[in-house]
Amino acid sequence: MSTPAHSHNRPTIAILGSGQLAKMMAQAATQLGCRVKVLENRPNPAPLADWEVTLGDWNDPAVLIPFAEGADVVTLENEFIESDALAELEVSGRLLFPPAACLAQVQDKLLQKEALAAANLPLAPFRPVSSPDEVVEAAERWGWPLVLKRRKLGYDGKGNATIRSAAEVAAAWQKLEGGAAALYVEQFCPFDRELAVMVTRARPDVSDEVVVYPVVDTLQRDHICHTVTAPARLPPEWMAAASLTAKRAVEAIGGVGSVGVELFLMSDGQILINEMAPRVHNSGHYSIEGCDCSQFENHIRAILGWPLGSPTLRAPAAAMVNLIGAGDGPAMPMGLRDALAVEGAQIHIYGKDRSMKGRKMGHVTALGPTPEKALAIAQRAAQRLRFG
Amino acid sequence: MSTPAHSHNRPTIAILGSGQLAKMMAQAATQLGCRVKVLENRPNPAPLADWEVTLGDWNDPAVLIPFAEGADVVTLENEFIESDALAELEVSGRLLFPPAACLAQVQDKLLQKEALAAANLPLAPFRPVSSPDEVVEAAERWGWPLVLKRRKLGYDGKGNATIRSAAEVAAAWQKLEGGAAALYVEQFCPFDRELAVMVTRARPDVSDEVVVYPVVDTLQRDHICHTVTAPARLPPEWMAAASLTAKRAVEAIGGVGSVGVELFLMSDGQILINEMAPRVHNSGHYSIEGCDCSQFENHIRAILGWPLGSPTLRAPAAAMVNLIGAGDGPAMPMGLRDALAVEGAQIHIYGKDRSMKGRKMGHVTALGPTPEKALAIAQRAAQRLRFG
Repeated sequence: MSTPAHSHNRPTIAILGSGQLAKMMAQAATQLGCRVKVLENRPNPAPLADWEVTLGDWNDPAVLIPFAEGADVVTLENEFIESDALAELEVSGRLLFPPAACLAQVQDKLLQKEALAAANLPLAPFRPVSSPDEVVEAAERWGWPLVLKRRKLGYDGKGNATIRSAAEVAAAWQKLEGGAAALYVEQFCPFDRELAVMVTRARPDVSDEVVVYPVVDTLQRDHICHTVTAPARLPPEWMAAASLTAKRAVEAIGGVGSVGVELFLMSDGQILINEMAPRVHNSGHYSIEGCDCSQFENHIRAILGWPLGSPTLRAPAAAMVNLIGAGDGPAMPMGLRDALAVEGAQIHIYGKDRSMKGRKMGHVTALGPTPEKALAIAQRAAQRLRFG
Repeated sequence: MSTPAHSHNRPTIAILGSGQLAKMMAQAATQLGCRVKVLENRPNPAPLADWEVTLGDWNDPAVLIPFAEGADVVTLENEFIESDALAELEVSGRLLFPPAACLAQVQDKLLQKEALAAANLPLAPFRPVSSPDEVVEAAERWGWPLVLKRRKLGYDGKGNATIRSAAEVAAAWQKLEGGAAALYVEQFCPFDRELAVMVTRARPDVSDEVVVYPVVDTLQRDHICHTVTAPARLPPEWMAAASLTAKRAVEAIGGVGSVGVELFLMSDGQILINEMAPRVHNSGHYSIEGCDCSQFENHIRAILGWPLGSPTLRAPAAAMVNLIGAGDGPAMPMGLRDALAVEGAQIHIYGKDRSMKGRKMGHVTALGPTPEKALAIAQRAAQRLRFG
């Protein structure tokens, strides 16, 4: 454990990506006096367009390395940047959190599951498959249904196919471009509920501090996070098990900074890890108003080697509702005036260039005496808002 | 009462000034999806340097009018911009809040006091003076001590002189450059405590909504706000009187958006208005974490013609401690690591270019069960931080 040298200049944080996660990280960083610079690979005006944004391909070390010059630390808002390019950035002498090795392991979901399994963490059975026949073999062992998944670039339900019988294997294999794309198969999890836990882990070169946010209930709609309520409605011993599983999972993948852990809760109370997001995560947005120190501020603290803040809820409960684009349309929603009139609703509009069907355009958070009451406030505001 | 037309484009807010007040307004505006552009008249890197900043003289309509082009609304972080230039901006067709007429009245403290007196609001006796003899005449009526003040450009104790006897008049007159500068004189207020109230008033063309934040206790040190605790320790009827006085004072000066009202509490419970700041104000910084809707978000809502949010405290009490430069030094404080370890302390570092003696460099907020307990947390963190 060492303490990083502390220059008294303003730290500069280079963020790869300019979406809503980068925006909320930048807000937390600037509150603490840091400078922020941003690399974005798409030319559209983005939520961070008012900041200093460089346009360029973040998978190209010839772009990445000069961009990061002078930054005290580099971080990112999505886990799909090529880990080889990020490894070159590290070799050039730049600090990157999460580290390239962590991203390499998480990007490839098969490697992610293997790392978690190696740490004896609870998972649904999985195996790589290199032909449709191997999918059928897996079903012979575990039974139907199975979920066929791409090893890379899957998110929000993209890159997945649920297979209910041998007759459906060929179509699923084709849909996911098996052969061209590396796939794996997982036993279908007939889960009762989906939980999530945000964890912030300090830089291992600085301290062994880890903070675990409250376990939350999440509700997905069309594979996209729709609502989050904190704390989850769970018996204390299940809560403790979920927290501990999340903490160990973050350590197993070598996460640094804020990391999202998605969990399945089975009807018998068993908790299985669904997926890891090695970055700030939608299930932790409630922490901006809901917790003493948000997932965004704790991420900034962690990557700068600063002490972590408390993840304690400021109120008995908090809830968040995502604002999802209903179709193509402008960046500002209809109904904003009515939604702002809902007392206690904290409205976040990301300021994206356009609304598109299924695109995350903003969110609403509310605090309350119970998760249900907080959710009712957030939903009252969210229902008045419409993008596209 | 009308409803402003609502385009579904992102509103653009033009802010005159790039200091900490502009920064916190920009944070609130971007959370709500707005764009921000900034005009600054000094070439130093400022807290908003990461945003799009235009350098230029904001007292020059030839700079001001092209800068504000395309902005949906213009606002400001200090009341010293020449009201004539701002009036020209309004004539050019731009919406400005607070309006130029309000600023003209507040900039000249004699006009400010006259407007408040005309509304029958409680003030210490005052009168304009055009010679040292008139100061002595005032003392004959009110007794010593008196406070001699510049009508314009005074703040944080600058431009004031307390006079205890006729023998001190000449020196005070000279110090304040009486003759060259227009002065007025006020009866000295032997106040017990200093209170403040933030008020957010909607645009009168949109609604007659006014929200009043909790009355707070403020402690000044060397004429600079040092700590704020909310709510003030006051009997309910004094609290109600202070709230009502603040609300009426904001209406009397034609304030729009968030306005700070500084009050004196006399030993008999009488409340006198000390001074008005027609903008977001240091005594309301606690509202970022402390209230459902901060003074910054409510200012943005007000100037865009949106419904105002609730000023209710999120916890029983809140406290704020200013971080003041002890001398020349870098923008990041010594002791940050230790201060971040204080649980529940919300640290704001403004990111100014340099620390200077007496300069506001940041602040710390804490919530708690009582004002004293919240203050203890904020002070524990603030005491570990040193600028310069």
